Amino acid sequence: MEPRYILHYAPDNASAILRLVLEEMSVTYQTQLVDRSANAQNSASYKALNPSGKIPTLITPHGPMSEVGACLLYLSEQHAALAPTSDDADRPAFLKWLFFTANTLHPDLTMHFYLHRYGDDAAMGSMRQAVIDRLRNHLTLLDNHINDATPTYLGAAAPSVLDYYVGYMLRWCALYPRTQSGWFRLSDYPRLAQLAATLETRPAMVTVQNAEGLGPTPLSAPRLATPLEGVTI
Amino acid sequence: MEPRYILHYAPDNASAILRLVLEEMSVTYQTQLVDRSANAQNSASYKALNPSGKIPTLITPHGPMSEVGACLLYLSEQHAALAPTSDDADRPAFLKWLFFTANTLHPDLTMHFYLHRYGDDAAMGSMRQAVIDRLRNHLTLLDNHINDATPTYLGAAAPSVLDYYVGYMLRWCALYPRTQSGWFRLSDYPRLAQLAATLETRPAMVTVQNAEGLGPTPLSAPRLATPLEGVTI
Repeated sequence: MEPRYILHYAPDNASAILRLVLEEMSVTYQTQLVDRSANAQNSASYKALNPSGKIPTLITPHGPMSEVGACLLYLSEQHAALAPTSDDADRPAFLKWLFFTANTLHPDLTMHFYLHRYGDDAAMGSMRQAVIDRLRNHLTLLDNHINDATPTYLGAAAPSVLDYYVGYMLRWCALYPRTQSGWFRLSDYPRLAQLAATLETRPAMVTVQNAEGLGPTPLSAPRLATPLEGVTI
Repeated sequence: MEPRYILHYAPDNASAILRLVLEEMSVTYQTQLVDRSANAQNSASYKALNPSGKIPTLITPHGPMSEVGACLLYLSEQHAALAPTSDDADRPAFLKWLFFTANTLHPDLTMHFYLHRYGDDAAMGSMRQAVIDRLRNHLTLLDNHINDATPTYLGAAAPSVLDYYVGYMLRWCALYPRTQSGWFRLSDYPRLAQLAATLETRPAMVTVQNAEGLGPTPLSAPRLATPLEGVTI
């Protein structure tokens, strides 16, 4: 069968979140490596698909799209799966926390990873402390929301696209940047720890673990990826 | 008629984007001032609606929601208006640029406004230059997208929720922070300048100009708000 989607990915990049959801949905797709060691994400051919040069890009039947949150929402709509639908009473809160993850948690994690792009050497210390304080606050808000609201779309037994998004951010909190990950303890966020443990029981997670070399507990006690396919990082 | 929505707002805050869209959709709503001079956005009663303490919060028939991008998407879904629907071929690209605006342009503008929250005095100079460089790049990507793709959902004759979001960001680029707005010239982005001019012809814009004291050319040549309702800023 012709695959419905093509996922332009790099191992342990945000593309892994989409791969998890495509697996969870049992949707046909193929993968296309973006060779970061050759800076392929900034090539003219890649930027024609995604002018911001970010990974992933998802090729859909209606053309390329990017931004993880957008792709997650689109997939949930197209396959009527893993999210409250637009006529569901949970839709407002689901969208709120999906955007919160995309526009607050994820950008601050990106800043934490690539802090040298945001200021010079004299700025590093104070920027680092400020971004860590914000990240702790964001994770606390998510953890509290699960505790206060027991939502269907976050931390429940059946995973949503938002669970996969938040769950993968927990992996990154624990791993990156490699010399600056000591601020994060998953046990400080007990409902998020449970969310991670639930996702690790899913067959989709095992498939992506194997494809991208994520190891046996990729969210709750992660180690650096040793990808079995694609480029050596 | 009982209003369908309640918009918790402050003048010239991101709540204005939702007010514009509610007006454009001719939806019934009422407004509720969040008194920033009394730090009401951090009160227990407000944080019960929106734990992150951001403005706006939109009270929907299914409870409170926040995050501007989420609210825009929700309103477009509920009223089948101002956005490509989920079965439209433009949906992937629309979602991509909506999330891009929410998770890339808007957070960097927020950083530009409140830079002292992100680092200490020694960090200001290099952080300022880096964020301005990023903002220019984001605006160029949006401008190029209108030029390259002539999309239906950005810069077209009939406004979308995304037009209002991007258009309002142009106002903020020109105005804030008050001592640091010289980096921005709308004429550097001719399709975005056209987008702003188109929005300024809408009756919805006139209504919100009057309600929040935005002045006669609130996007293309803005001046500071002199709100006629609510609190003095």
